[in-house]
Amino acid sequence: MNSPYPSALLENAVNEFANLPGIGRKSALRLVLHLLRQDEGRVANFAGTMLKLKREIKYCSVCHNISDTDVCNICSDKSRDSSLICVVENVKEVMAIEKTVQFGGLYHVLGGIISPIDGIGPSDLEIASLEERVKSGEIREVILALSATMEGDTTNFYIYRKLQPYGVKVSIIARGVSIGDEIEYADEVTLGRSIMNRTPFDESYKLVSK
Amino acid sequence: MNSPYPSALLENAVNEFANLPGIGRKSALRLVLHLLRQDEGRVANFAGTMLKLKREIKYCSVCHNISDTDVCNICSDKSRDSSLICVVENVKEVMAIEKTVQFGGLYHVLGGIISPIDGIGPSDLEIASLEERVKSGEIREVILALSATMEGDTTNFYIYRKLQPYGVKVSIIARGVSIGDEIEYADEVTLGRSIMNRTPFDESYKLVSK
Repeated sequence: MNSPYPSALLENAVNEFANLPGIGRKSALRLVLHLLRQDEGRVANFAGTMLKLKREIKYCSVCHNISDTDVCNICSDKSRDSSLICVVENVKEVMAIEKTVQFGGLYHVLGGIISPIDGIGPSDLEIASLEERVKSGEIREVILALSATMEGDTTNFYIYRKLQPYGVKVSIIARGVSIGDEIEYADEVTLGRSIMNRTPFDESYKLVSK
Repeated sequence: MNSPYPSALLENAVNEFANLPGIGRKSALRLVLHLLRQDEGRVANFAGTMLKLKREIKYCSVCHNISDTDVCNICSDKSRDSSLICVVENVKEVMAIEKTVQFGGLYHVLGGIISPIDGIGPSDLEIASLEERVKSGEIREVILALSATMEGDTTNFYIYRKLQPYGVKVSIIARGVSIGDEIEYADEVTLGRSIMNRTPFDESYKLVSK
């Protein structure tokens, strides 16, 4: 036997799982054998759900987040502050920020960040549509909530430049020592930033939302 | 929003992945977003491969290992010793033992081990078919290579009792200190077994196969 797998069908299935990020060949085999133990209806359901997702997924025409409707739940929620936009990379960050219950504005999902190494430039992201939203004049403030990485900073600067002509207030989420972290173990860049960007004590515990 | 997911399609897909063993909801979301970034053909391929595996998979009529043909590559290999059978739990163990290149006999895949907690009894496993193979009289030795757990031991004893009437030699793979392990850190049961089952020095480096 050249292949360690006793069956080409099995090997193909293992290859498919092993192509997913963070799944090695051993885990892939374990997952495939688990599926094999399920009845055919369950496996058909698994396969069908993935295909349905890919075929029928929609993106909100306002904020570009994943949505089942033309305008997503958040954008169509009248109780939210539509003059405040939080710019994020993708749906994962929307979910993380919603979980904090500290933000009552709308979102704008870029669909990635500028990363020349991965061949992602500004035109691959929803930056022009952000500009359109700001151009409408109804936006009071844009909050940049991208990762604190080189790519995130590059994207922040690019967006900041694009939005400057419209006179909108552009802010960036605070970088500093994480809640629960001990100062002694914080890295110096983070610690330096958190001293530079110190906030008045009585403001520090306020809600961010409005 | 009651659900943290902005889309039911997305949530269903995350649920499907999160149902697989060892995959949490965060990893599931990451995997689903990865699939969403692929083009539709790739996703259709992923889904189709799983369904095809479930629908078309065959099991070798001799050893019950997963196989693309009626009799698997190993059972139909004339150069292997067909009088020697190694009993294993499933295909993962066949692959692991084949990788050692130390075994030249055939296999018998039980499809699990006796585990009352999971409702798996002897009749759910390929034990009767093992008895049939031994009954044919062409088998010289049966090697039990199940996990060194309580369930593995129970299954070993059950099979041993079933095969005793046929006068076939039944052996069990050695339990002892793993290669590379330091004696000082070996647990006492393992260490005790490895002293009890000590082997003559000059036999210790021989091939297991014949």
